[in-house]
Amino acid sequence: MNTLYLIDDLQAARKKLAFPVGLVPTMGYLHEGHISLVRRARRECASVIATIFVNPTQFGPQEDFAAYPRDLPRDLALFEQNGVDIAWLPEQNEMYPPDFQTWVNVEDVTQPLEGKMRPGHFRGVTTIVAKLFNAAQPDRAYFGQKDAQQAVVIRKMAEDLNFPIEIIICPTVRESDGLAMSSRNVYLDPAQRQAALVLYKSLKAAHEAFINGINDAEQLRLVMSDTISQEPLAKPQYVSCANPETLEELSGPVSRALISLAVVIGKTRLIDNLLIGEV
Amino acid sequence: MNTLYLIDDLQAARKKLAFPVGLVPTMGYLHEGHISLVRRARRECASVIATIFVNPTQFGPQEDFAAYPRDLPRDLALFEQNGVDIAWLPEQNEMYPPDFQTWVNVEDVTQPLEGKMRPGHFRGVTTIVAKLFNAAQPDRAYFGQKDAQQAVVIRKMAEDLNFPIEIIICPTVRESDGLAMSSRNVYLDPAQRQAALVLYKSLKAAHEAFINGINDAEQLRLVMSDTISQEPLAKPQYVSCANPETLEELSGPVSRALISLAVVIGKTRLIDNLLIGEV
Repeated sequence: MNTLYLIDDLQAARKKLAFPVGLVPTMGYLHEGHISLVRRARRECASVIATIFVNPTQFGPQEDFAAYPRDLPRDLALFEQNGVDIAWLPEQNEMYPPDFQTWVNVEDVTQPLEGKMRPGHFRGVTTIVAKLFNAAQPDRAYFGQKDAQQAVVIRKMAEDLNFPIEIIICPTVRESDGLAMSSRNVYLDPAQRQAALVLYKSLKAAHEAFINGINDAEQLRLVMSDTISQEPLAKPQYVSCANPETLEELSGPVSRALISLAVVIGKTRLIDNLLIGEV
Repeated sequence: MNTLYLIDDLQAARKKLAFPVGLVPTMGYLHEGHISLVRRARRECASVIATIFVNPTQFGPQEDFAAYPRDLPRDLALFEQNGVDIAWLPEQNEMYPPDFQTWVNVEDVTQPLEGKMRPGHFRGVTTIVAKLFNAAQPDRAYFGQKDAQQAVVIRKMAEDLNFPIEIIICPTVRESDGLAMSSRNVYLDPAQRQAALVLYKSLKAAHEAFINGINDAEQLRLVMSDTISQEPLAKPQYVSCANPETLEELSGPVSRALISLAVVIGKTRLIDNLLIGEV
């Protein structure tokens, strides 16, 4: 595995990689979710570039950028074990030099849900992803369904800006008790860790209701918020039953939907989602 | 010459082109300025893609989008005569489908000069150029010094977003009497055409003053505005003596500068510029 730091070095190394090239962008502190992306890229691509960059521009001023967990030696070992060809670890100053002043902004699909709760978050995401795309020039890029809105936003950006890159969204990886893997789970104490099960429990309750014939969007949201309200440690930020492409909140009967929620437990903000109905 | 319309067709054809690939983006109605870009790309690149797209998003609501001159058969013949390999002519709906919602924005260098006079103009320019870059994936892209601020803005965008593309700025091509070539010159009646010489005359007067030891930025701006004021048909919008990279207006003695101006003659808005001092 080749470990690189500079954009120029990556672009030079990129020229020698066999087609197709897969890119797995991460913020490090890898868990099984990240590893599943690396494995899929390894399976589907002749070459795999994986990146670690904790992107400051997607954190709000009150968020956990400085505290975001980091473990570089372990991350590099995991990349190596899973067949990454190039690990790219740019420095902050390499990605955002002092006179940096260009932003990529996706408008409509960034407005609800996470975009509403985290102003500026998606502008940071789309800008860094555009930079990673141009620096690595992958043929395919792999992201997790766990960040459902991010997946929609990146697909839209890639389509609107004509990036010649296939965006591949991989299933959420869960702990054995159902909690979606997240680097932020490390913030939870044992009681909070137990309470965090309420996210997947709420989604499953709504999914089960849907399977049993309850297809009214508002009813499905109620099933989720009722479930959350049974967990005293959980403070819901939103529950949503939305169009999976436009992310517009649905009303009335639905045949398919993205159901998602954001919950704060202690000081930790957690999100989860399921796609329900016809694929 | 291969004439293409769809992004998918361009991206498929792109894969077969020999390295390096040069891109010449235009809005058509070609003049010698455009042709000089095509010739330089032809000289320096194994393959040349030239595009014609009158980009609606860089025109203001009061500007001349609908009236912008067009002559496709002549443009295609000129591309062919000058060795273009692929002429790409996307339709409006191909570039901006109904749910288009992604914008590229460069902040600081788009604020003064043209950016101040034409709100939203550069957001349209950088967004379409990012799309053209991704659709054509050139190794080099050619633009004219005539649009001096556009050149600075595109360089900044390419640098900030890590586009693996060399931006090449080619000298302004002028009529024999000094008027900078522009597709908009066709709007001028004979008296206005004569009056339009005042742009280059003003720049030359400032340049001559500079050579003769007048290096105070404010003095140089005065030389230009005095020269414009001698032409009754010309209404100045701005005269500028700015830092060539940041476009910040200079004061005091200068060793190098971008001197530029915008003038309205009749209903036609004209711009011109010179780089003066050490290169």
